[in-house]
Amino acid sequence: MIVVKVGGSAGINYDLVCDDIAALVKSGTQVILVHGGSHETNVISERLGKPPRILTSAQGYTSRYTDSETLDIFAMVYAGKMNTRIVERLQKRGVNAIGLSGIDGRLLEGPRKASVRAIVDGRQILVRDDYTGKVEKVNTGLLALLSGAGYTPVITPPACSTEGEAINVDGDRAAAMIASAIGAKQLIILSNVPGLLRQFPDESTLITHIKYSELEQALSFAEGRMKKKVLGATEAIAGGVEQVVFADARLPNPIANAIAGKGTVISR
Amino acid sequence: MIVVKVGGSAGINYDLVCDDIAALVKSGTQVILVHGGSHETNVISERLGKPPRILTSAQGYTSRYTDSETLDIFAMVYAGKMNTRIVERLQKRGVNAIGLSGIDGRLLEGPRKASVRAIVDGRQILVRDDYTGKVEKVNTGLLALLSGAGYTPVITPPACSTEGEAINVDGDRAAAMIASAIGAKQLIILSNVPGLLRQFPDESTLITHIKYSELEQALSFAEGRMKKKVLGATEAIAGGVEQVVFADARLPNPIANAIAGKGTVISR
Repeated sequence: MIVVKVGGSAGINYDLVCDDIAALVKSGTQVILVHGGSHETNVISERLGKPPRILTSAQGYTSRYTDSETLDIFAMVYAGKMNTRIVERLQKRGVNAIGLSGIDGRLLEGPRKASVRAIVDGRQILVRDDYTGKVEKVNTGLLALLSGAGYTPVITPPACSTEGEAINVDGDRAAAMIASAIGAKQLIILSNVPGLLRQFPDESTLITHIKYSELEQALSFAEGRMKKKVLGATEAIAGGVEQVVFADARLPNPIANAIAGKGTVISR
Repeated sequence: MIVVKVGGSAGINYDLVCDDIAALVKSGTQVILVHGGSHETNVISERLGKPPRILTSAQGYTSRYTDSETLDIFAMVYAGKMNTRIVERLQKRGVNAIGLSGIDGRLLEGPRKASVRAIVDGRQILVRDDYTGKVEKVNTGLLALLSGAGYTPVITPPACSTEGEAINVDGDRAAAMIASAIGAKQLIILSNVPGLLRQFPDESTLITHIKYSELEQALSFAEGRMKKKVLGATEAIAGGVEQVVFADARLPNPIANAIAGKGTVISR
């Protein structure tokens, strides 16, 4: 059983990802796919006249400012367009995929942040209408029920708050929680870069191996969205996952390459 | 076990529908909810600069012209926004709902129409890039798996073509197929009218009872979207469902009222 997370950045080739998933499933490996949708959400937000706004925490982590209207757009793109089209790609390849967001059967559950202190457009503000949170609980029973019956789960944010609200959560950290909760040996995190780069965006500076004890230090190399991937990797390994691989989803055989150790391999 | 279909027209009160579903589930009744999203799809289509286009068949049935871009919007609204927000309403009410589109686990499967002869903008044309079809097969095993584990399925188009493509299908007829396939006794079809009206839109002309043998005649009273509801009712009863009720989803207790016989009751 492996967990694959594929990001939502521009340049990612979902056909190639789904080719590899179909090959794995046909060879008898159970796969859980988690996906993002950030780039497409930005595009649709602009087209709907609601341009994305980014919150930056004091620690430098960025997240989408998700008021109720933004959550509608977020759900439309992640759970609607992206999820449906990925499930369709898998169905066309003979994989009986089932798309689920984290609110379905409280698959991904956690508290909604009451308020977020953040820097928005350069000014520090206290945000109270933000529907975001952090996954603390995974409904492993539902995943076992579906995987056991031969289905391949395709999972996306939003998650479910303790009160039952749809909330925006980080996909990489959600994938890490899923991998830990189900006892997966491997978590593969695919995006539009070859892995963690010592000098972003110079791809010749790829870091090929990181030990768990070096992860805090590695965080200093991480730019933008890569910060949360490093955080997710840290949480996954702390949660018992043996290996996390950051790999490239723009080239053929992205998952097979990651399994073969191409990318940034993180382990104890 | 009852199947409830709630439409996607303007004026429908989903909070009231979910109040009733929560009451039913708490009293031990298994419910499967099927929903639409036509009005909101029209709104989002306009906002995205892709206004809806309607196909009218020779028999006078209307459907959405669903090219690939329209299917993206359709999936965003039906499977993204509408489905997520209905599941959220149920989760907030203590119902462990799971949202599924028809492509998930090939829940709703049928052939895609190779081409559609239709009247578009007043002219008869042969449409070849339309992603529509008709549900012929329901994955009852998946519904039994989820209902048996205590989940309440919340189902929406799109469906899955035989080749694994996402296709637009009529929600009322899909609900009829589901009700027949699982052997439901009752199918409740909620919309923004009190039922079938002899003289649309005069609500004082509500037809309270229709026998199965009178359904073909009743079709002549049906305006616009009500035509497919009558067709769905016909298919449901032919498929073994004892009773179909058309009822009003704008007023409190819409499902309890329908169960009590308020609306248009159709039976053998």
